[in-house]
Amino acid sequence: MALIGRHVTTRDPRVRLGPGDDLAVLDASGGLLAGVDQVIDGVHVLADRVSWDRIGRKAVSRSLSDIAAMGGRPLATLAAVVLPAGAREGDVERLCRGLQEAAERWGAPLVGGDVAFQRSGDAPLTISVTVLGLSDEPVRRSGGRPGDDLYVTGVLGGAVLPDGGGHHLDFSPRLPEAAALTATIGRDLHAMIDISDGLCRDAGRLAEASGCRAVLRSADIPVRVGVPREAAFADGEDYELLFAVAGGVVVPDQIGPAACAVTRIGTLGSEAEPRVAIMHPDGTCEDGSDLGWMHGS
Amino acid sequence: MALIGRHVTTRDPRVRLGPGDDLAVLDASGGLLAGVDQVIDGVHVLADRVSWDRIGRKAVSRSLSDIAAMGGRPLATLAAVVLPAGAREGDVERLCRGLQEAAERWGAPLVGGDVAFQRSGDAPLTISVTVLGLSDEPVRRSGGRPGDDLYVTGVLGGAVLPDGGGHHLDFSPRLPEAAALTATIGRDLHAMIDISDGLCRDAGRLAEASGCRAVLRSADIPVRVGVPREAAFADGEDYELLFAVAGGVVVPDQIGPAACAVTRIGTLGSEAEPRVAIMHPDGTCEDGSDLGWMHGS
Repeated sequence: MALIGRHVTTRDPRVRLGPGDDLAVLDASGGLLAGVDQVIDGVHVLADRVSWDRIGRKAVSRSLSDIAAMGGRPLATLAAVVLPAGAREGDVERLCRGLQEAAERWGAPLVGGDVAFQRSGDAPLTISVTVLGLSDEPVRRSGGRPGDDLYVTGVLGGAVLPDGGGHHLDFSPRLPEAAALTATIGRDLHAMIDISDGLCRDAGRLAEASGCRAVLRSADIPVRVGVPREAAFADGEDYELLFAVAGGVVVPDQIGPAACAVTRIGTLGSEAEPRVAIMHPDGTCEDGSDLGWMHGS
Repeated sequence: MALIGRHVTTRDPRVRLGPGDDLAVLDASGGLLAGVDQVIDGVHVLADRVSWDRIGRKAVSRSLSDIAAMGGRPLATLAAVVLPAGAREGDVERLCRGLQEAAERWGAPLVGGDVAFQRSGDAPLTISVTVLGLSDEPVRRSGGRPGDDLYVTGVLGGAVLPDGGGHHLDFSPRLPEAAALTATIGRDLHAMIDISDGLCRDAGRLAEASGCRAVLRSADIPVRVGVPREAAFADGEDYELLFAVAGGVVVPDQIGPAACAVTRIGTLGSEAEPRVAIMHPDGTCEDGSDLGWMHGS
């Protein structure tokens, strides 16, 4: 913790006691959200090709994306880091700065951490980030019903480019958008998930948890400029929101302070195989259940 | 999470939603404690020499020791695991079982996790465990005052034996003892820390946070049978509690349901160099400030 503590300060009043003791102490009441996610060199990033502050920001943003997916308010983050043998001090400082910048920006101050130094061997840079959030009525994956409309925020596909740069490093977790959605749609927002492993895979997870089938209209998927349409189905690391809304409810085309696009891309139907069906403009139906992203492949 | 979720169930009523969604949802109110710690093959354990269920238990117990050190009640744990290339399925199952066993035993159900597979290279087994706990009045390191008596639970030294077995794998976090201490001593329990990096190093941390000097009486240190006295000052991984109590307050010799020994080992004095002074029976004073444990050295 000392190493992270040296680079970390927060004025968030919910942090009663920050880094430096055995544990941090936070004010919390009601439903507490908690989850952990990892960023590993060679799997989620290429640490010799990007500045480590971006890696730090990605690690925090990736975990915060799950807070957005539950419609929660960020509370705090904790980071555990394994530094490879030979990590340079400047890189380590950049990493800590990136972790803190993202944590502060999104209102989830870094309140705990552990940094371990690998003295030899090939151990890759490894960062695990735990996020805590609050929500009295979290939006689960399992609340979808047949007849719901499916929507996504933003555009999909091509987040991981060959040079290791791009969206997957610099995305913003959809926290303001999620807050706007819960405020606007209320209880008609039945289910939500963030798209980290590809649209089809995560649509399959939402559909399965809800006991439904996801039917996606190929022509309606918002695809990132310059990316082939198929990529939007299977690529990972979009960190957009996929959500199910009661059929017929009006959802705005843009949402949140940054006017993020919201697009209707399909519906939930009664449970059937395949779990994810892609409807093409020519009337054919493709099985999308096995399309998805394997990190590091 | 899927891999951990498959091995994890809990009936703890504070867990509103367990593994399987984007995040877990917990009931929490008041002061929330949060911290993270890591166990890394080659640094904290030797994964080719011990059964992986012990590694899992150690990883959870090590983090829970910090909850004890704050006088808190465990709430939940989250684990992030990096598996080395070639990890065997049986070992992975044992690891998950060990994580869950320790988490359930101590009332801190495993509610979140992430498992990453290393496909190549020398990446060591790495486990980071985040613990959450509750306490309205956490016992900090910084509350010690000159004139306080210093106590430890249990015996010290020799926790890490050459064959990789022993106390550091199978210790119990001092949670019931900490609960008994806070109940018995109340506000006269001024400061507390768990001894993970050696008595002298952690006494120095408590003393520094409290703006005091720690004076330890060599002859009074409770030493593990078969271990040289010096080892009790510098060895790490004891996971006993070191605490400061207002001078003159009566502290029981044994505490908690397992009648754990409690020993007075010194006092806090006004701030002075060296930060940690060891008083020997022959009247000499040794500087203990630099004695301590470096994991993996």
